[in-house]
Amino acid sequence: MTIYNAPARDLSFVVNELLNFEQHREELGFEDADPATISAIFEEAGKLASDVFHPINQSGDEQGCRLEDGEVFTPDGFKEAFKQYTDSGWGGLNAPEEYGGQGMPHTVSFLVSELFTGANHSFYMYPSLTHGAFGAIATWADEETKQLYLPKMVNCEWTGTMNLTESHAGTDLGMIRTKAIPQDNGKYRITGNKIFISCGEHQMGENIVHLVLAKLPDAPEGSRGISMFIVPKFLVGDDGTLGARNGVRCSSIEHKMGINASATCVLDFEDAEGFMIGKPNEGLKAMFTMMNSARLGVGIEGLGTAEVSYQNAVVYAKDRIQGKAVDGRKLPEKPADPIIHHPDVRRMLLGMRSFIEGARALAGYTALQIDISHCHPDEQARQNAEDFLGLMTPVVKGFFTDEGTAAANTAVQVYGGHGYIKEHGVEQFARDARISQIYEGTNGIQAMDLVGRKLGLNGGRAVMAYFQEVGALLKSAGDDEAMQPYTQPMAAALASLQKATQWFMQNAMQDPTNAGAGAVDFLRLFGIVAVGAMWVRMAQTCQKALADGSSDKAFYETKLSVGRFYMEHFVPEHTSLLARIETGSETMMGIAAEAF
Amino acid sequence: MTIYNAPARDLSFVVNELLNFEQHREELGFEDADPATISAIFEEAGKLASDVFHPINQSGDEQGCRLEDGEVFTPDGFKEAFKQYTDSGWGGLNAPEEYGGQGMPHTVSFLVSELFTGANHSFYMYPSLTHGAFGAIATWADEETKQLYLPKMVNCEWTGTMNLTESHAGTDLGMIRTKAIPQDNGKYRITGNKIFISCGEHQMGENIVHLVLAKLPDAPEGSRGISMFIVPKFLVGDDGTLGARNGVRCSSIEHKMGINASATCVLDFEDAEGFMIGKPNEGLKAMFTMMNSARLGVGIEGLGTAEVSYQNAVVYAKDRIQGKAVDGRKLPEKPADPIIHHPDVRRMLLGMRSFIEGARALAGYTALQIDISHCHPDEQARQNAEDFLGLMTPVVKGFFTDEGTAAANTAVQVYGGHGYIKEHGVEQFARDARISQIYEGTNGIQAMDLVGRKLGLNGGRAVMAYFQEVGALLKSAGDDEAMQPYTQPMAAALASLQKATQWFMQNAMQDPTNAGAGAVDFLRLFGIVAVGAMWVRMAQTCQKALADGSSDKAFYETKLSVGRFYMEHFVPEHTSLLARIETGSETMMGIAAEAF
Repeated sequence: MTIYNAPARDLSFVVNELLNFEQHREELGFEDADPATISAIFEEAGKLASDVFHPINQSGDEQGCRLEDGEVFTPDGFKEAFKQYTDSGWGGLNAPEEYGGQGMPHTVSFLVSELFTGANHSFYMYPSLTHGAFGAIATWADEETKQLYLPKMVNCEWTGTMNLTESHAGTDLGMIRTKAIPQDNGKYRITGNKIFISCGEHQMGENIVHLVLAKLPDAPEGSRGISMFIVPKFLVGDDGTLGARNGVRCSSIEHKMGINASATCVLDFEDAEGFMIGKPNEGLKAMFTMMNSARLGVGIEGLGTAEVSYQNAVVYAKDRIQGKAVDGRKLPEKPADPIIHHPDVRRMLLGMRSFIEGARALAGYTALQIDISHCHPDEQARQNAEDFLGLMTPVVKGFFTDEGTAAANTAVQVYGGHGYIKEHGVEQFARDARISQIYEGTNGIQAMDLVGRKLGLNGGRAVMAYFQEVGALLKSAGDDEAMQPYTQPMAAALASLQKATQWFMQNAMQDPTNAGAGAVDFLRLFGIVAVGAMWVRMAQTCQKALADGSSDKAFYETKLSVGRFYMEHFVPEHTSLLARIETGSETMMGIAAEAF
Repeated sequence: MTIYNAPARDLSFVVNELLNFEQHREELGFEDADPATISAIFEEAGKLASDVFHPINQSGDEQGCRLEDGEVFTPDGFKEAFKQYTDSGWGGLNAPEEYGGQGMPHTVSFLVSELFTGANHSFYMYPSLTHGAFGAIATWADEETKQLYLPKMVNCEWTGTMNLTESHAGTDLGMIRTKAIPQDNGKYRITGNKIFISCGEHQMGENIVHLVLAKLPDAPEGSRGISMFIVPKFLVGDDGTLGARNGVRCSSIEHKMGINASATCVLDFEDAEGFMIGKPNEGLKAMFTMMNSARLGVGIEGLGTAEVSYQNAVVYAKDRIQGKAVDGRKLPEKPADPIIHHPDVRRMLLGMRSFIEGARALAGYTALQIDISHCHPDEQARQNAEDFLGLMTPVVKGFFTDEGTAAANTAVQVYGGHGYIKEHGVEQFARDARISQIYEGTNGIQAMDLVGRKLGLNGGRAVMAYFQEVGALLKSAGDDEAMQPYTQPMAAALASLQKATQWFMQNAMQDPTNAGAGAVDFLRLFGIVAVGAMWVRMAQTCQKALADGSSDKAFYETKLSVGRFYMEHFVPEHTSLLARIETGSETMMGIAAEAF
């Protein structure tokens, strides 16, 4: 049996101390989000995660989903847990109050999502896809549609899906074949086959709102000819009542490496009634509203998995006695010492933890930029926040999910042979985490988005601003002796990142294969610097708290040590990553395809 | 459906060209192992792997093993495939002719094992554990026992197991509790519980020969009080006939992340009849005969998995069209190009392949040292080979299996979402490969063996000889312009490895936690250099073949490019690994256990 405990103290540290959300509260218009409320939210969410979602994580994996006559049945307890989530209003935590939401900041809700996905990755996909669909409808639909759908979706009474992939069209959505034929009543008839539709069919809500990419009869070729449609499972009357079943059926569900409790559906659309949202042929743009938020959400899956993996590895490492500590016996009355005293086990645990705490800080900082981009009174501030988000979305998605899988595999390694046995539950984390590196755009695609699109956007405005921000941060701590263990390694890493950026500018224009060749290494380098910068901020916050004589001394001192470990463990990679990027594409592209 | 084709051309290249085994044949006494015979062996083994073992790999995973009334049933086709392996004499490929073996060199048999394990990891565990038990009995048992057991085990009519682990004693075998009570007839009664016993019960052979670690009543505490016993499933009469069922039963089989077709058993020994081999209380030494060969064998599992993962990823990458090649359309008549033309996909494929071909060369070179250590007429040569093997065993086990899992996960990534679906078969590679990083001593334990034992052995004789060997190799290619892309990066990497070794000498004596802290990074650095050195040798061989006007030009040219990619992709890691090692253990050991 695995355990899950919400890292409530650390979440409060991030929001209330590191980010000092209180400073932003009034300006951003979140009157109710005072520190005590925020801490209470983390605590309550943590209870739900630990007491309701996590206990059905392992049984959900064992049972998986079941398809019978087109209906999908989720594992025992899922429907009940979902009802509890819905009833207690968590679904609308950050949603506008006009649709029944709580109107809390993303800074809070994004970190709450870490708890839910960490406790049960498969389960949390059902609500989180709904939140994504909510966002797309809120942004792109007309007022009538919003009034009809959003109050039902805000708390997941109706759930949502994203229907993009077809068997021959995944990354390359320009090739989709699903057709949308206009009808006289302004609606459309949608026909086609979609695969890999997460939560595409189930019985957890009253209705399922499919957002579907399809092509109009006269659509231009490729990705400029895609439109987005709402296709509900049950037709929705003008008064919101549910009518007949629409022409969409689940014909099969996939058997997967993991996330077995999340139904991955093949959906067959046959003359299904749908209506367009957004503009004709601009569906990809509309879908990206959903996708960008989904990508950040997937990044958080990596963080959540890393946390639950770490927690269980620590329990095992404290409990398992094996071998004698080389720096002196800890339990001389026993035949061996707990393995947590072995340096290699500490290396594994701190590798996980130094990522986790840094990533959580970056997640909070990123979510704050979402709030700023939505709510800040100053246009420049909103734009700066938008720039940051564009840059950081692929980094959070790619780096966090790579490290999520790595952390889960590290937990398996801490358990040794016991980790490989299903009963102990940690191997499930590794199987579940693996999908996050793939869906919502593989991490290779994230890297190409970062290097090929985001770096050059608006003449490099976002990346230059970010480098300036980190440079100023390092400078601000420049003379402080106690900050040197953080700022010195980071200054070198930042220089490598800037050099790598420069290298792309000089070499990827004339030969774009140079961008593709180094993109994944660049994303990792960016991730290491971005999380490292948060560690610099955290070190400052901790040192200040200690200087101010905080009573929670152990918390801050440990965090300072964990941050040092990040500098020793992750940051040194920058030299290798830069060297790899600078080798370019010549060797790899020089080999004939037939020679593979 | 996955495919598997034996890399027969590359195996012949390694043995007949790179190692030029022909030059060693006479001296080592392998008259029959001429180049044509060796190539024929690779070809025949390849057919068995492709046509018999691989087709039951995926169905074996789906069906798994079944326990009924203490009997274990393997998946469909396993028994028949095993009989084919047995009947055709593959089991005794490298075994002495006096016991019915073929007397071929390890240089050949070790590489053949790559084909079998690559085609079906789970299946090949049944024979390979038998080979390990064969080796331990051949080394430690008296002549009578050898005559009784080895002719039956040479071709796996009787199979073998290793019984080490107990639920509370894995890495720390000193804590085992299984008891061996001496009887008046010179035999022993064995009582205890063993877990994680691979192939501990099944019906593939006539008998199962368990090698069991247990403690005599008067044994000293810890690992100096362990003895090794033969405990057959069916008692063996003096004439070799099988008698009554012995007191050993399989009480359960584990449900695991992968290798589902390999039965992982809990074995209960209750007054089971056994007899000691080796000396009292020196069982660990005897077990290490088996273990060292098993560790090399596990390393080969990593190589085999990487190869099958690569092959399938290549098929998919050539077949799947998605996106347009940035360096010009390849299939302008189609809506998209095969993904093998995208740089990031090539990066993934060449990452796998440059490891595979280098690792295969190192595997061959290592196996040649086994033959030299056994058969060379000169004592000094035998000792040098032993030294090399002691050093390289943990490196091959650790580095190869880390990269095996990485390659399998890379194949999943090449497939994208399709890779996560069980039907496509590549996710199984990732699940199966994961165990190789754990069993026969976790890779952390391998790293500690390397740093804590092997580096300092005999005053560092082995490691100094190895550095000299690699240094001389680089020097030998020093003036050759065409060799610079290989020798220059490798010279820097070797310098880092030497510096890291020096660092341990200076810092791990006074504080052994410094050894544990950097051991895993050191093993990786060692692996990168060891495989890189083989790439330097291969580059020399290829350049010579091209200069000699070989007709197989494309083969050598591609290999030179793949080697260059290794230098660009793996070798740059050396700076980061060294930097990490040099940070030592201070930060990690400074955190209180309670703070985790």
